[in-house]
Amino acid sequence: MEIFNVKTSQRTDFIDITQAIEKKVKESRVNNGLCCLFVPHTTAALTINENADSSVKNDIKLKLNALVPPEEFYTHFEGNSDAHIKSTLVGNSLNIIINSGKLVLGTWQGIYFCEFDGPRNRNVYIKIIAG
Amino acid sequence: MEIFNVKTSQRTDFIDITQAIEKKVKESRVNNGLCCLFVPHTTAALTINENADSSVKNDIKLKLNALVPPEEFYTHFEGNSDAHIKSTLVGNSLNIIINSGKLVLGTWQGIYFCEFDGPRNRNVYIKIIAG
Amino acid sequence: MEIFNVKTSQRTDFIDITQAIEKKVKESRVNNGLCCLFVPHTTAALTINENADSSVKNDIKLKLNALVPPEEFYTHFEGNSDAHIKSTLVGNSLNIIINSGKLVLGTWQGIYFCEFDGPRNRNVYIKIIAG
Repeated sequence: MEIFNVKTSQRTDFIDITQAIEKKVKESRVNNGLCCLFVPHTTAALTINENADSSVKNDIKLKLNALVPPEEFYTHFEGNSDAHIKSTLVGNSLNIIINSGKLVLGTWQGIYFCEFDGPRNRNVYIKIIAG
Repeated sequence: MEIFNVKTSQRTDFIDITQAIEKKVKESRVNNGLCCLFVPHTTAALTINENADSSVKNDIKLKLNALVPPEEFYTHFEGNSDAHIKSTLVGNSLNIIINSGKLVLGTWQGIYFCEFDGPRNRNVYIKIIAG
Repeated sequence: MEIFNVKTSQRTDFIDITQAIEKKVKESRVNNGLCCLFVPHTTAALTINENADSSVKNDIKLKLNALVPPEEFYTHFEGNSDAHIKSTLVGNSLNIIINSGKLVLGTWQGIYFCEFDGPRNRNVYIKIIAG
């Protein structure tokens, strides 16, 4: 297992981590298998979405904040319940196929670390399974 | 890795791909392991839900369109931001256990390809890991 | 593959199954790999979220019920469409890394079985892949 560090700079922040993950896969020298990514935090998530026009990630952030507003009434005393809920809706892990030594992504796909309670220092765990 | 083609016929369209995946698992002759499905598109997704009464998939489609309406204001110029958001909410990959040569699904579970910006020709990537 | 039984006691009920899963991982004697959890039901799900303050899971349940209310109009005759929709939004499987014989979770992370149409007797399938 390897750990990859992500520094977020806003409360809601989507960081493209595709290149960092591709580098880890290359270093592993695994030709075929599965790349499993896992976020050990309860107010963050991982998603795969468009990497070309950054307005897509902005629309996703805006809509998530509209559906689950930070300022709504919640019972959790820390005031970040919206971030926990977004983490459950988006999901905290991803699996990506490794084929011929490369991470298999669609043309327009990028891997995003989703921060919902930043800015913070965050980790992504990477496990590569050959097979 | 194998590729399975899906042709969708409506803007929002859920296609039951269970039998096609079961066939691929059988052909692989893997007795025990994991079947990983991955959609290389940013306006589609995969989900597992009821296969008996088709009103369930209709209710899911209707509710997703109510929560994330296509005609709302978004900044992305292509006008399909709702489809990108639905892709992130539903998720673009699935893992299903293979046991004694068979895909392990509950009695009422079917695997659905979720189209959110169709009609289009789509792909599903299949990776089977023995173990 | 192993099966773990969960008994839920309310219509919407989040049960912490972390310890039970940790026990299964220990018993497997797999040092490194992946723990795959799968719910064979279409009105339940799995999520990872905060295990410290139980108000977090209450806020998640309340918000899911606000976004997808049980009493809304749906076409499915069984009257539990909201539970099917929540299952698709939260997701019915999880993958967690196993490192040095242990399930790798963040300090505040617990694994939750999410019941959306209880009370019922439910199962969780567990598959451990070494690698």
